[in-house]
Amino acid sequence: MIIDGKQIRPIWLDEDRFTVKVIDQRQLPHRFVVADLTTVDQVIHAIREMFVRGAPLIGVTGAYGVMIAAQNGKSASNQVGFIIQECGRIKAARPTAVNLAWGVDRVLERVHAAGSPAARIDAARAEAAIIAEEEAESCRLIGVHGAGLIEAVSRRKNGSTVNVLTHCNAGWLACIEYGTATAPIYEAFNRGVDLHVWVDETRPLNQGARLTAWELGKYGVPHTVITDNAGGHLMQHDRVDMVIVGTDRTTHTGDVANKIGTYLKALAARDNNIPFYVALPSSTFDWTMTDGVKEIPIEARNPDEVRYVQGLADGRVTRVLVPPESSPAADFAFDVTPARLVTGFITERGVCGASEAEIHGLFPEH
Amino acid sequence: MIIDGKQIRPIWLDEDRFTVKVIDQRQLPHRFVVADLTTVDQVIHAIREMFVRGAPLIGVTGAYGVMIAAQNGKSASNQVGFIIQECGRIKAARPTAVNLAWGVDRVLERVHAAGSPAARIDAARAEAAIIAEEEAESCRLIGVHGAGLIEAVSRRKNGSTVNVLTHCNAGWLACIEYGTATAPIYEAFNRGVDLHVWVDETRPLNQGARLTAWELGKYGVPHTVITDNAGGHLMQHDRVDMVIVGTDRTTHTGDVANKIGTYLKALAARDNNIPFYVALPSSTFDWTMTDGVKEIPIEARNPDEVRYVQGLADGRVTRVLVPPESSPAADFAFDVTPARLVTGFITERGVCGASEAEIHGLFPEH
Repeated sequence: MIIDGKQIRPIWLDEDRFTVKVIDQRQLPHRFVVADLTTVDQVIHAIREMFVRGAPLIGVTGAYGVMIAAQNGKSASNQVGFIIQECGRIKAARPTAVNLAWGVDRVLERVHAAGSPAARIDAARAEAAIIAEEEAESCRLIGVHGAGLIEAVSRRKNGSTVNVLTHCNAGWLACIEYGTATAPIYEAFNRGVDLHVWVDETRPLNQGARLTAWELGKYGVPHTVITDNAGGHLMQHDRVDMVIVGTDRTTHTGDVANKIGTYLKALAARDNNIPFYVALPSSTFDWTMTDGVKEIPIEARNPDEVRYVQGLADGRVTRVLVPPESSPAADFAFDVTPARLVTGFITERGVCGASEAEIHGLFPEH
Repeated sequence: MIIDGKQIRPIWLDEDRFTVKVIDQRQLPHRFVVADLTTVDQVIHAIREMFVRGAPLIGVTGAYGVMIAAQNGKSASNQVGFIIQECGRIKAARPTAVNLAWGVDRVLERVHAAGSPAARIDAARAEAAIIAEEEAESCRLIGVHGAGLIEAVSRRKNGSTVNVLTHCNAGWLACIEYGTATAPIYEAFNRGVDLHVWVDETRPLNQGARLTAWELGKYGVPHTVITDNAGGHLMQHDRVDMVIVGTDRTTHTGDVANKIGTYLKALAARDNNIPFYVALPSSTFDWTMTDGVKEIPIEARNPDEVRYVQGLADGRVTRVLVPPESSPAADFAFDVTPARLVTGFITERGVCGASEAEIHGLFPEH
């Protein structure tokens, strides 16, 4: 994306073709910090501690992690064995986003086909770059297909402001370009549609308030930050025209794992007859699971993410403790929205309903 | 309540019989600060800035506000006229909780019946104290009636832990004693029921994380602080047995205004067949409104309550800015849960269903 006049992505390969650079998203919006990844431990740390987050970006980071493993295993007596072992560690960094294993395995396949240590590094680098470009292109196409949905609402409202609600950050920061949930928003905005975005702050880590608001603000898209509690009230009072969210893993039957709280918004959308769309590249479909609520692993993270809130105080990024020191907390990172609450999926191949038949109709190769 | 060995209420009359003392709840849980109220401006400030909050407590504070108006108007040429004017200002301090106008008007009636400036002050003081005692007794009875519901769940689960989810703070801090939503919890806990409370942190002002967690911790009730986003996920996975919340205003047809986000929990409870109870003294019923979503005024507060989060850093109570400085925010304080999503009301007279017929059956005088 062009931000402050500069082309920027959340992950890129340094000119040295060895170092992977990522935006440390934990510091946004108050600090713009770039981190270097040159070891698998750093890759795992960046994924686990959420320098990088969002299903497509985690997938691309995992893909580049294989390249880093190949580089660091160049002189190992068994480079392939070393890479396989490191890939296992990378894939275990976070459990919910299906893109992580998908990205790692796809690069690993290329590594297996290469014949020398140097060729394995080159193959991994090339495949990771291809994945990044494919994800960017998928997001561009998601934007094109999804913008049509926003334009249709705009026409129905005779051009008055279309209010889109989104949860968490499924923007370009979570992907490579455009985002998933935000791609239709950016594309419709580019086409001149009068729109406004309700940005759920998205506790506990406030990816909405910190990242989505930052992205939209930098692009000039009108938006308002709200608490995660507010969406139902806004929907009851006709102040939301549609919901668009991303997903970390969607079963091929249409159940959607996404940031905790998504399910509550889907319930409110259904109760108020508001369309609820999920935007995703096909890399986020899980083609093996059929019951998302029962099967998708939901990550439990450090309760301190709930107990402490990070922000700016006196020009410094600071964490404050909200509940009593002695009160326990629990931190569930995702929930699953059953397919019955989803109006449709916005994919790189078009829009489809939330059923196994429609999903496979769009992706018959699976 | 007995806290740290001392009897404490969130509001009381000082020994000087002139000054009203309140806990400044904005400072909890990290600071225990008591504020003096001796002018109507201070009363309005304490209500508006939420030193005091919660429907029953706002009602009692308003009642004592009339006494303060009478005291300060003692030498006015027209004391009654002065009091009436001040009452208008107090009632306008916050729009959603019906108890405020109810408490003020009830004391005002006594003032009208008194024959001298000193008698008006005495009448106001006496009536405010009666209201406080009545609210405490109502909450005690809510506890008795509601504890039976928790015990029934405990029996059904053969004594294994009953998990209650609550939103915001409808505890003794919001009332005078016991609380509304927490009264059944305290009473069941006193009776030895094995229970655990999921405490929604309750953004934006975190009354759950700050106040409910503090209250429950001080009383020794097992609890866990969660984000407001987490309840649906917990309900999907059988980790919530019942929801109990308070209310700021409930129509006599059963629509429930309560802290923003309550509606989302009610939807999730319905989707997972989990009972959703609302605990309230009869002073919180609005006997005139019939359509809560359309009629109950929803307070919009300062967006900085969303943008900033208060907590403890380096031993100091500090506020941190979460979203970008330039991103707008909006702060809706309440939402309305339609009667169709409410399993029942727990009142001082017993439990009833969420219908006009059942509510009037319990309170036939209205």
